[in-house]
Amino acid sequence: MQLTDYIRTIKDFPKKGISYKDITPLLLNPEACELVVSEFIKGLEGKPIDKVVGIESRGFLFGMLLAKALNVGFVPIRKPGKLPSQTFSQSYDLEYGSDTIEIHKDDIKKGERIILHDDLLATGGTAAAACQLIEKLGGEIVQVNFLIELDFLEGRKHLPKANVNSLVHY
Amino acid sequence: MQLTDYIRTIKDFPKKGISYKDITPLLLNPEACELVVSEFIKGLEGKPIDKVVGIESRGFLFGMLLAKALNVGFVPIRKPGKLPSQTFSQSYDLEYGSDTIEIHKDDIKKGERIILHDDLLATGGTAAAACQLIEKLGGEIVQVNFLIELDFLEGRKHLPKANVNSLVHY
Repeated sequence: MQLTDYIRTIKDFPKKGISYKDITPLLLNPEACELVVSEFIKGLEGKPIDKVVGIESRGFLFGMLLAKALNVGFVPIRKPGKLPSQTFSQSYDLEYGSDTIEIHKDDIKKGERIILHDDLLATGGTAAAACQLIEKLGGEIVQVNFLIELDFLEGRKHLPKANVNSLVHY
Repeated sequence: MQLTDYIRTIKDFPKKGISYKDITPLLLNPEACELVVSEFIKGLEGKPIDKVVGIESRGFLFGMLLAKALNVGFVPIRKPGKLPSQTFSQSYDLEYGSDTIEIHKDDIKKGERIILHDDLLATGGTAAAACQLIEKLGGEIVQVNFLIELDFLEGRKHLPKANVNSLVHY
């Protein structure tokens, strides 16, 4: 079974010139989902993990499955104004303008070993901001993992301290 | 173990007068997450299921765990403009204005037995719109399940054909 058989490319989405990688065929196949999780676990090489952090909203999908497989807690990073308790925020630049993400201050304790997960690594802005939030709370980023990495956008160069692990490269 | 021990109420969030039910303490506890899934499975009473549909974004969290536990595919219902292939859209009224959700046309086949999942049942507008989308594709809604139901908002009266199952009531 090849994960790439379950990822389809949609041309000119969301705008002209962009080839969108659509994982919905993969979500429809429970064996393919199982393979994603087991490949992530294999990539950890047995390193102990305390929590999985997933970025809203597609990072929630495999983030929860990964937390379950590791039997650890899940921490959501969300868009501004969504997390109701005390948060830290981090802004990051987009092609035009900027965006912000938030984490609950009490969701990670100093020294906890963290996996950061999102489905796609593109330019790396969101993931880099998420790493800053985790480090601000004293978390140790053991791995940043992605289902898909768009190599030509060189997003991993913005994740210097992190051990980046992507299952599928384009 | 009581699920309510892992759900905290945040007063006046997101605005004055609203008591927000925060499930992030539950997400941090793998045993509590496991209990959520096993209670959902118990509520199905062995009925066969073909797919789990989860509503963006918090319905992605336990939607994926439930699909895994049942060994079936997961279908995301998303906000407009997020799903890249052919979609059906459904709009629904909010207190002020309206909102829209979308589903991929090819994600549910006629006669498939569906669980619709979201974390919270409030006024029921989103879930009712999601039911309309599933039925438009010919899916048979076996159950609509929620982690939390706010009984005083009477959301379940907008879900007449559905077998509503909520684990925690307020």
